Amino acid sequence: MRTQVGIVGAGPAGLLLSHLLHLRGIDSVVLESRSREYVEQRVRAGVLEQGTVDVLDEAGVGGRMRAEGLPHHGIELRYGGAGHRIPFERLVPGRAITVYGQQEVVKDLIARRLADGGKILFDVPDVALHSLAADPYLTFLGRRLDCDVIAGCDGFHGVSRPSIPDGVLSIFQRDYPFAWLGILAQVPPSAEELIYSRSERGFALHSMRSPEISRFYLQVPPDASLDDWPDSRIWTELRARLETVPGFALTEGPIISRDLSAMRSFVAEPMRHGRLYLAGDAAHIVPPTGAKGLNLAVADVRVLAEALAAFYGSGSTELLDAYSDTCLRRVWRAQHFSWWMTTLLHTFDSDDAYGRRLQTSHLDYVTSSEAAATTLAENYVGLPFDSGAPRD
Amino acid sequence: MRTQVGIVGAGPAGLLLSHLLHLRGIDSVVLESRSREYVEQRVRAGVLEQGTVDVLDEAGVGGRMRAEGLPHHGIELRYGGAGHRIPFERLVPGRAITVYGQQEVVKDLIARRLADGGKILFDVPDVALHSLAADPYLTFLGRRLDCDVIAGCDGFHGVSRPSIPDGVLSIFQRDYPFAWLGILAQVPPSAEELIYSRSERGFALHSMRSPEISRFYLQVPPDASLDDWPDSRIWTELRARLETVPGFALTEGPIISRDLSAMRSFVAEPMRHGRLYLAGDAAHIVPPTGAKGLNLAVADVRVLAEALAAFYGSGSTELLDAYSDTCLRRVWRAQHFSWWMTTLLHTFDSDDAYGRRLQTSHLDYVTSSEAAATTLAENYVGLPFDSGAPRD
Repeated sequence: MRTQVGIVGAGPAGLLLSHLLHLRGIDSVVLESRSREYVEQRVRAGVLEQGTVDVLDEAGVGGRMRAEGLPHHGIELRYGGAGHRIPFERLVPGRAITVYGQQEVVKDLIARRLADGGKILFDVPDVALHSLAADPYLTFLGRRLDCDVIAGCDGFHGVSRPSIPDGVLSIFQRDYPFAWLGILAQVPPSAEELIYSRSERGFALHSMRSPEISRFYLQVPPDASLDDWPDSRIWTELRARLETVPGFALTEGPIISRDLSAMRSFVAEPMRHGRLYLAGDAAHIVPPTGAKGLNLAVADVRVLAEALAAFYGSGSTELLDAYSDTCLRRVWRAQHFSWWMTTLLHTFDSDDAYGRRLQTSHLDYVTSSEAAATTLAENYVGLPFDSGAPRD
Repeated sequence: MRTQVGIVGAGPAGLLLSHLLHLRGIDSVVLESRSREYVEQRVRAGVLEQGTVDVLDEAGVGGRMRAEGLPHHGIELRYGGAGHRIPFERLVPGRAITVYGQQEVVKDLIARRLADGGKILFDVPDVALHSLAADPYLTFLGRRLDCDVIAGCDGFHGVSRPSIPDGVLSIFQRDYPFAWLGILAQVPPSAEELIYSRSERGFALHSMRSPEISRFYLQVPPDASLDDWPDSRIWTELRARLETVPGFALTEGPIISRDLSAMRSFVAEPMRHGRLYLAGDAAHIVPPTGAKGLNLAVADVRVLAEALAAFYGSGSTELLDAYSDTCLRRVWRAQHFSWWMTTLLHTFDSDDAYGRRLQTSHLDYVTSSEAAATTLAENYVGLPFDSGAPRD
């Protein structure tokens, strides 16, 4: 079997890349170790940047997102007994976020690829990458897929990054001393917008997936187990951390899903080795506080699709050669922002009294300075593409 | 001997307070442990915020500052082989800084107080504070000064703060794992504006006192001794840390003064105990990176003078009772900003590869985002008085 671009992983990165390449007349095959059902149900991110929404729209796969996604024009920072709205409509006019689950993006992309005759092979658990320096190929289930280049879109735990020889990549990593317990509840959201709440008991996030489904997160110890968190404890803790302003009451309902996420920052550089291009979580991880993971993956494959189009169109490798550097500028901006949001809002056991006051002072500043609020807003809705530099 | 306000310390805080009170018809006596010559020669800060300049001007003591001070409308952040100017004139129109040595402010205030018949007693080394709860008084050299209130303006190592009983104050503190070596050199500045340079070798600051006198700082180990730093080593290190952009050459000259400063963040709360009001370094210390120490002292005594004027005018203690809270809002903003500038620009032995990349990413953001640059600019020139909240 032969294709132009062999794509490992049918998450949003791999699927969107396959679709963007198809729009440019470039053939690809997507290999996914899991089942279609699994990837379509996997609960992950749910906040799409303006640029992500634009990419999906321009690629013709934004129809259901436009119909069912929830545009948000602000978020609330809640601490010290008060809520403070960060108003995107004033701070970053024309830019907003759209709340739309990652698994919905995945469903839309799979449906579109299959409708377009795209090749996605699910349930191929033993994918291996070969000959990355030249004439690369993939093997799986006793078969062989030859290709011009391989796109490693198989996430942090995927096989692509470990296929690069030892010593080639520089690794930058930080682990945070807490995890996130996420739940989906079958209950309307308790507020119209996302609420990022810092409390003495730890961070909590009020979010949503739809007008009927709420999404919540709780900062928990890094070694927490789902067994530690029966429904009653979850609701008690959410109330304690979110019902901290007058008049706010959490609406409770059946918990339909729960998950634990490690909080980690990770970057592997460069994002390319020979004919292998890494995209999304395969190359970099951010803690979910800034909602940047999915959006970075979309930004990566947008760059990669353009670079491959230039390569197949003119034979020029200029954009492909620049791929890693181009992506890493945005990656590091998101790394810093995600670290910043995380340290701004979580409690750290290691923090002394000075550190806690510093955090409060920082929150007071972000919620009172137009400039500081704008730094949060412009990063949250996403800086423009092709720009480490939003100025002018 | 009796006065209305007994002021401990003839630094900028105590002297300005005495002058502001005089303008409001309130009598004070300033007690200073050191000689007049000593306090007039003590090399300290040299960057005045817009608000500080305005206070001095409005109080009629800004004449020489206006004539000899150097207004600056920007600073440079230098790192990664390039310089990046933060343009105050565009980011915070109408607000700037003035480079004018703290000892010049002290000279101007002493001259004015003495011309106005003010009482400043120098060389009184054994000042003690008594009866802070009611009918306070000060003793020194066998004499007694009765007063209505005491203003503790005698700095971090002064006697005022330790006169407050144990257990009353909450202390918030952070020590940084480095110190600053400061020098004055008899040589024109090598650039028109201040240069904050981050290099792999550590932080360096190019500053000035006048068109003929340069001021430099080097990040050095916390246990550094002046004996470790002969002139030749100082210039070699300054060149290595500052000559990092094409075409920039440091002008060398005779070193006429050198000093070491610990890098510390410190806040004592509340800033009042009974009839004792702490102002300036007596209550809070910031690392010098953000140039906030002197400016905070001026902000404190501005609040205190107004509160005392209200008290003597109407008998109302409302402003006096609010003094600590009012000052602490600005203090904590400056604490955060000073910590932020310090961590943005210094090298930390404890930083791993991720931390160093995060710092570079942060610098890239501050120098490319209009909003982020504005956060630096608005804090550097000083937020408006009476405002934790610059918005609107």
